[in-house]
Amino acid sequence: MIRVVLVGIEGAVNLGVIARTCVNFGVDELYIVKPVASLDEALNYAAKGRGFLENAVVTDSLDEAIKGVDMIVATSDEGYSESDMLRQAVDLSDFAERIFPRTRSVAILFGRESTGLTREEIGRADILVTIPANPAYPVLNVSQAVAVVLWELWKHRGMEAVNVPRKASRDLLGELLSLAVDVSRSVMSTEEKVARSRILWKRMLSKAMLTEKEARVLKYWLQRVRRQLRQDCLHE
Amino acid sequence: MIRVVLVGIEGAVNLGVIARTCVNFGVDELYIVKPVASLDEALNYAAKGRGFLENAVVTDSLDEAIKGVDMIVATSDEGYSESDMLRQAVDLSDFAERIFPRTRSVAILFGRESTGLTREEIGRADILVTIPANPAYPVLNVSQAVAVVLWELWKHRGMEAVNVPRKASRDLLGELLSLAVDVSRSVMSTEEKVARSRILWKRMLSKAMLTEKEARVLKYWLQRVRRQLRQDCLHE
Repeated sequence: MIRVVLVGIEGAVNLGVIARTCVNFGVDELYIVKPVASLDEALNYAAKGRGFLENAVVTDSLDEAIKGVDMIVATSDEGYSESDMLRQAVDLSDFAERIFPRTRSVAILFGRESTGLTREEIGRADILVTIPANPAYPVLNVSQAVAVVLWELWKHRGMEAVNVPRKASRDLLGELLSLAVDVSRSVMSTEEKVARSRILWKRMLSKAMLTEKEARVLKYWLQRVRRQLRQDCLHE
Repeated sequence: MIRVVLVGIEGAVNLGVIARTCVNFGVDELYIVKPVASLDEALNYAAKGRGFLENAVVTDSLDEAIKGVDMIVATSDEGYSESDMLRQAVDLSDFAERIFPRTRSVAILFGRESTGLTREEIGRADILVTIPANPAYPVLNVSQAVAVVLWELWKHRGMEAVNVPRKASRDLLGELLSLAVDVSRSVMSTEEKVARSRILWKRMLSKAMLTEKEARVLKYWLQRVRRQLRQDCLHE
């Protein structure tokens, strides 16, 4: 299941064209968070995506728009910065080929034409995906970015039918993340380092496509580490 | 060398956005045949593709626009018809992967928003390429189609120059695995469980495609955990 989430979309033409593109590439749901663009005007540009746009869910909060999916994907043309833990993006091709086909449901976030997604919004996502375009000018118009991303995913949807190992549920991955944060708190000297470790674990868990089985073994490993660290504290 | 040829383009927004997209994906030349759209108006939508659009060649004939290239490619959303010799298209992916990389220079023709390329125009091309989209509604907006096509071609050329995150080296991943095994030894009660954890970590590290930065943060995390566990052991 693919859900496209537009955050603060500003242009009516873009909004209309994006709705059309969603239909072209079989997107299931469209959520529009705090739109600046006029939805009525956008209908003029949606062509046969008009009905799809009329059925879009308009919300006031990102929370509501990312509820109920297995994976939340942020997108940005600023995908990579050596020193910035938040901007360690996966290339679109990698995402489409390796991660997406093993995910049951995904929400893909696209930001404002002017400023993209905020750091806070990117931080809410499980993973950051980028379109590696011309380094001299990598900034695509948002409806172009949507087209490119949806095309890549569309190409790989046939794999849904393929018999692949069952992937760990979002709930289980959430437990793993909590455990890793608990461990971090025991061993890190500052809250900043705990937060950095949290992002690392979130990214790693999202990228590693753990099977149910693998996730259970990791849960046991983290539980043992946490228990040992706590026991030792009591002994002191 | 890639040349984009727009035949009878009607919308100024589309024209501007296409010019921008050409720059995003490193297109060399833009030819505009008998445009209906206003080029002046289109400049407003080209963002940093403005200069590229100003340098576009406007012609009155398709002949001029397809001169001097090794291969002429027509595009259409009506790619295939069993009985129609003209509509025996190659899928975009096939074209990008198998044909395009062996071609020195190519002109790619995109048609009018309303009616696409005429049969005569398609007949002038060496090959017809189609984007295999949703059979229920495969008709993309032209600037979306351009984005998807250019992205596919881009993937098969300049990608090496792009600023993609440096992946962690095999050596660094080896260090991470050793650290994880050390930790496992501190917390697991049997060698069998240590061995099982080792496999988990090896798989997870292989699948997670960690960047150099992420791997260094994880190394620090594992080192802290190991140190804490060891110190606590000494205290006992």
